[in-house]
Amino acid sequence: VLKPTNIDTAFANIDQPWTPIIAGQINDFHLKLAKFEGEFVWHSHAQEDELFLVTKGRLRIELRDQPALELDAGDFAIVPAGVEHRPVAEAECEVILLEPASTVNTGGTPSELTKIDLERIDTQ
Amino acid sequence: VLKPTNIDTAFANIDQPWTPIIAGQINDFHLKLAKFEGEFVWHSHAQEDELFLVTKGRLRIELRDQPALELDAGDFAIVPAGVEHRPVAEAECEVILLEPASTVNTGGTPSELTKIDLERIDTQ
Repeated sequence: VLKPTNIDTAFANIDQPWTPIIAGQINDFHLKLAKFEGEFVWHSHAQEDELFLVTKGRLRIELRDQPALELDAGDFAIVPAGVEHRPVAEAECEVILLEPASTVNTGGTPSELTKIDLERIDTQ
Repeated sequence: VLKPTNIDTAFANIDQPWTPIIAGQINDFHLKLAKFEGEFVWHSHAQEDELFLVTKGRLRIELRDQPALELDAGDFAIVPAGVEHRPVAEAECEVILLEPASTVNTGGTPSELTKIDLERIDTQ
């Protein structure tokens, strides 16, 4: 039986920043939810475009060689494959990510921030 | 140069219900925005899963052989490929759709509601 998921309720289950959870699968794409706080690592994704939709707070996505993306709640931006970027949140923010299921959070820059086996919330 | 898009601003440019616009492309997926009002047609998508995220108002997605999905603002649901469904909005609501770029709004049920050449908003 299909059922709806409330975004705020799902975010309430996330404790740790920079730790996306999988909130749904659409063909070979994942809907992920994540809290960001502080500075992430510079990275890019060789194959995957990545959509960031901010639902709470404010997110800056720094980009190499062009102005940073400044996202408030209700704003989204797409970072194309190959574009080096670094998310920075001065305070905790909540972000919906839409990206191919193959996407690793730190892209081509593995580190202690790399998350592989993401938690899934039960959406069905 | 990449730039952010504000969801509310983008919705303000939509006049007609049941007429999705393309607000962004993520690999072979489209982020679409649509206003729904009234009853749509029963249909299914042979290949494509479809995510509905309600940002304003209330949406009911009727399903064959199982209870309808009742979505308020902040709720999302995924209708898998092959599942016959009918969106119904008692009053105008605003919906973010995420689905493969190949998805046609009326799926396997072409009608006067079918929209092929969707408007794109400039997100870059």
